[in-house]
Amino acid sequence: MKLIRFGAKDNEKPGVELNDKTRLDVSGFVNEYDEDFFGGDGLAQLEAWLGKNGHECPIVKEDVRLGPPIKRPSKIVCVGLNYAQHAAESGMDVPKEPVLFFKASSAIAGPNDDVIIPKGSQKTDWEVELAFVIGKKASYVDEENAMAHIAGYVLHNDYSEREYQLEREGQWVKGKSCDTFAPLGPYLVTKDEIEDPHNLDLWLKLNGETMQDSNTSDFVFNIPELVSYISQFMTLLPGDIVSTGTPFGVGLGLNPPKYLNPGDVVELGIDGLGTSKQHVIAFE
Amino acid sequence: MKLIRFGAKDNEKPGVELNDKTRLDVSGFVNEYDEDFFGGDGLAQLEAWLGKNGHECPIVKEDVRLGPPIKRPSKIVCVGLNYAQHAAESGMDVPKEPVLFFKASSAIAGPNDDVIIPKGSQKTDWEVELAFVIGKKASYVDEENAMAHIAGYVLHNDYSEREYQLEREGQWVKGKSCDTFAPLGPYLVTKDEIEDPHNLDLWLKLNGETMQDSNTSDFVFNIPELVSYISQFMTLLPGDIVSTGTPFGVGLGLNPPKYLNPGDVVELGIDGLGTSKQHVIAFE
Repeated sequence: MKLIRFGAKDNEKPGVELNDKTRLDVSGFVNEYDEDFFGGDGLAQLEAWLGKNGHECPIVKEDVRLGPPIKRPSKIVCVGLNYAQHAAESGMDVPKEPVLFFKASSAIAGPNDDVIIPKGSQKTDWEVELAFVIGKKASYVDEENAMAHIAGYVLHNDYSEREYQLEREGQWVKGKSCDTFAPLGPYLVTKDEIEDPHNLDLWLKLNGETMQDSNTSDFVFNIPELVSYISQFMTLLPGDIVSTGTPFGVGLGLNPPKYLNPGDVVELGIDGLGTSKQHVIAFE
Repeated sequence: MKLIRFGAKDNEKPGVELNDKTRLDVSGFVNEYDEDFFGGDGLAQLEAWLGKNGHECPIVKEDVRLGPPIKRPSKIVCVGLNYAQHAAESGMDVPKEPVLFFKASSAIAGPNDDVIIPKGSQKTDWEVELAFVIGKKASYVDEENAMAHIAGYVLHNDYSEREYQLEREGQWVKGKSCDTFAPLGPYLVTKDEIEDPHNLDLWLKLNGETMQDSNTSDFVFNIPELVSYISQFMTLLPGDIVSTGTPFGVGLGLNPPKYLNPGDVVELGIDGLGTSKQHVIAFE
């Protein structure tokens, strides 16, 4: 299945997108794609319900805004430097164990919402990433059991303000958490639809020019390794998002570095997970 | 007012503690102390409702468990090295601007719940902290208006695994987010009850021996400065928690360093914010 949320910001309703692109409103069955939904066998129940009731679901109009396909999770865990080539362009060694950081969930936006350059910011950068969504609470999980804790996958642009992240005192979180810095979607694709998450092309274009073009086969740490590793340090809850890092081609790594300006258009995509597009605007 | 939540873990009900220590169940008025409550003028409405209906509220039995006094917030923002003396003991300079990091909200526990040493951990440490709770959404807030965005204050023990925080790859979040590493409470004290949050004694004892004993007058950055600063990088939502850093006297700073073992008892308190007590246990 492909889960969507649609409607006005902070007032989205749940839906699904069918293979023929038809979007159905499933708010007759479930209120939210949230912790209770993922943790309570919601995916299987939704699929069963759709089989019986799908033909009666209201169709979502094509011009309706898409929201992030998951309601605000308890946390967004991000993995740094998880592609060998991107670590190199950042001037860092490939890490011996995963580098983790958090992104504020208040940064989440719909897949095609505008991205807002923070007040006074000069160094807003892009990062196409494969994110996965937790389906089952994970604490001290072994690698061999890790995939059972995953509900599905979602396209993520891990926008990053490099001055805030790297040139201010302390930790990366300052450059990762600005409002609109986490566009998610267009949809959450359930695990069963992605045959091999470790062999997906992903790309990002700035004003039509390809900036990132890689494949998840270049991961330093694969998805079971990440689930297991993170779950040694904290409990992952249903609906939590883990973003697996970005490949070569961010603005920071260019010579000279290149950052976003109002009027720019960022498009990105991952095999099987759809595409998204953000217009860059100034804070008003 | 002093807000409490009481009952079994993940099934707490809201209450208040009166000046004579009587605890009242206010679940007849409000379901949760959460984002909607704080953001929707809930404190003023609760106070008004209590004036009329307080005498009819059920009394909470003394032996009932206290939970964290706020339902899981969207984020916990922590400030590092915010007491001049603690920066020195950590071998770091006083920062020029606030150092920020996140703690997973899944780490939140009741004030007197056991703290669990993570599997294989050798370096679990304590940090008594004054935390404040956001009452009104804060984005690009000026210092002079900052206090209007605060609902109240709460005692926090920012437990930290120093190997995970400082000796593993990357960011501090790994050592800050283990389950039970954020006991909050006993209660949230509303802003009006604390005359000067920048002149409060705070202390922590390990097995009866005083380890930390300081005063918030030693802050490097005060509360209005923190609200304003953080709100330049991210939006603080009602119910969000900001923990203002810990003073001199953590285990990491001792010579030799001293860490927690199963069987240890940690007690802490802040003027006007009550005390809490955690028994240290091993992960089972």
